[in-house]
Amino acid sequence: MRTTRCINLGGVLIGGGSPVSIQSMTNLPWHDVDGTLAQIDRLAALGCQIIRVAVPSHDSLSSLASICSASKLPVVADIHFDHRLAIGAMESGAAGIRVNPGNMRNVDSMRQVARIAALRGCVVRIGVNCGSLDPEIEASLGRGAEGMVRSAMKYVSLFEAEGCMSLKVSLKSSDVRSTVEACRMFASRSDIPLHLGVTEAGPPSRGVVKSSIGIGSLLLDGIGETIRVSLTCEPEEEIRTARRILSACGMLDDGPEVVSCPTCGRTRVDLVSLATAVEQEIERLLGLGKRINLRKVAVMGCEVNGPGEARDADVGIAGGKGTGVLFRKGEKVCTLEEGKLLEALLEEIRRAAC
Amino acid sequence: MRTTRCINLGGVLIGGGSPVSIQSMTNLPWHDVDGTLAQIDRLAALGCQIIRVAVPSHDSLSSLASICSASKLPVVADIHFDHRLAIGAMESGAAGIRVNPGNMRNVDSMRQVARIAALRGCVVRIGVNCGSLDPEIEASLGRGAEGMVRSAMKYVSLFEAEGCMSLKVSLKSSDVRSTVEACRMFASRSDIPLHLGVTEAGPPSRGVVKSSIGIGSLLLDGIGETIRVSLTCEPEEEIRTARRILSACGMLDDGPEVVSCPTCGRTRVDLVSLATAVEQEIERLLGLGKRINLRKVAVMGCEVNGPGEARDADVGIAGGKGTGVLFRKGEKVCTLEEGKLLEALLEEIRRAAC
Repeated sequence: MRTTRCINLGGVLIGGGSPVSIQSMTNLPWHDVDGTLAQIDRLAALGCQIIRVAVPSHDSLSSLASICSASKLPVVADIHFDHRLAIGAMESGAAGIRVNPGNMRNVDSMRQVARIAALRGCVVRIGVNCGSLDPEIEASLGRGAEGMVRSAMKYVSLFEAEGCMSLKVSLKSSDVRSTVEACRMFASRSDIPLHLGVTEAGPPSRGVVKSSIGIGSLLLDGIGETIRVSLTCEPEEEIRTARRILSACGMLDDGPEVVSCPTCGRTRVDLVSLATAVEQEIERLLGLGKRINLRKVAVMGCEVNGPGEARDADVGIAGGKGTGVLFRKGEKVCTLEEGKLLEALLEEIRRAAC
Repeated sequence: MRTTRCINLGGVLIGGGSPVSIQSMTNLPWHDVDGTLAQIDRLAALGCQIIRVAVPSHDSLSSLASICSASKLPVVADIHFDHRLAIGAMESGAAGIRVNPGNMRNVDSMRQVARIAALRGCVVRIGVNCGSLDPEIEASLGRGAEGMVRSAMKYVSLFEAEGCMSLKVSLKSSDVRSTVEACRMFASRSDIPLHLGVTEAGPPSRGVVKSSIGIGSLLLDGIGETIRVSLTCEPEEEIRTARRILSACGMLDDGPEVVSCPTCGRTRVDLVSLATAVEQEIERLLGLGKRINLRKVAVMGCEVNGPGEARDADVGIAGGKGTGVLFRKGEKVCTLEEGKLLEALLEEIRRAAC
């Protein structure tokens, strides 16, 4: 695990050993303040901790101010091209701004943004995208990992020179391998927290796979302080996927893990229905704000792996021939008819919820 | 990239620099030979290259023989507990067997299996699962990565001592981090090809995330010669996910990549519908057996990232205010009304299909 500086984004600590935080972005038109606030509430309820809002024009700054003052979550203003929007967003109360210096270009403008961010204690994300690198660096090093990292380091120096130290950096490509390489390279050279994501990951079918590989492989290596899953769909699904990634990496208690074996020629119980019903009951209980004091719930289809694996689980069932066995903390509780297995397991889960 | 020995599983080469192959497992009752063969055909059409079939009993061996003689894909027999089933499966024509020595236990039985496999040129997968390690090793080293790897090495030595060299190894845990650690450790100590997978990954919602992280992070590091995505659902979805993982790691040309930005407050076109329609048209063309001579198709929502990213794509559209721009190989082709953007892009894709 690398050591990173700790920054404070409107009360959410990033880096310095803080838990990895989850971000998303609102997707309603900028003038829909009420809709955006309602969306932020929904995302916060699902586990979103930082919200980004696009600031496409000077018109949108007054909406941004309303959103910032009423939002449950710290707001990061997403800025492109125009440094005056960055300054306006900070004056409107944004806890952070995201700039892509590659499309801002003018050095004096960036210095001005950096000085104001330093004065206000505003966090700046320097978002480097392989599609918009520093032109000189791109010309000499290309658009791969080295070009992305050198672009980031150049902009970091420029911001730090103005006293702006509350920085995070993202290095994004729609190519998973380049994203991972660039982040590993940056992590080995800097103590600045990394915001992880695979850009333009696409619709969920492929986007979940790309984001899981890109973000997950870095997190497993101890790299990444805040994450955003980008999917072409409603942002709620981004949060669910982000939670699953953190949970799979052992970084978030996302309710009990439901383990189940793939179905095969030995399976004699309807495993898919059982596992789905168990997941739904867990989601329902978590949605009611309950905590479930179980680490692992097993739904196993056969006698071969079932008992061996289910002993790892706090509660589990293993199917047999028309009957099955319920386990609790490694001990067999009882043998039941197939038709009663599910309800017995759900009852165990409900009993563990409080 | 580590150097691995090359083994031949019924005509599919694994290791030695061969492309990473995709596996799945049939899930119909063992006596349903026709259904199983039809399932194998469907999986093969989706890109499955090796198929595993459970052999739960001596009764099932005659079905296995029928499946092996008619299957389009090389068949691996999945064996637990009983070494006589392993021998029977090889005699029934299985190109490979999967054994879990941790539940076979008897050393003389394993030696007998190894000798027959060596004589027949049958590939043996030694499948180590954290739930069934060698008991002595588990007692001294626990069920973590070191215990899993030492168990595997012990069984490997036993099989190699009998002249059985066509081996592959899997090290599986339902915990992603342990799986990755164990595979990295094994890869640093052996030239035997690794079969990658996260066991009992669960229903697709979480299982796709867990499998993507576990398998994908290893593949990005050059580890893994054949993969199986385990999901609690129909095996077709395992193949689709496996293809997406390989494609995201740059190891498979899975048709053009559709990149699209997440929606945000700047988006003025219905990006989700556009990207979904593009994916569906690509799937439809691939399903007709066409090759599409495009590497990347971009569906971008706004003028900010759109043009910059779309120049990377062979074909792309970038939305604006009620209109959009079509790009081809980095060059703007034309500006179109929003309502005509999709059809223009689909036409480009169809023209590239042959």
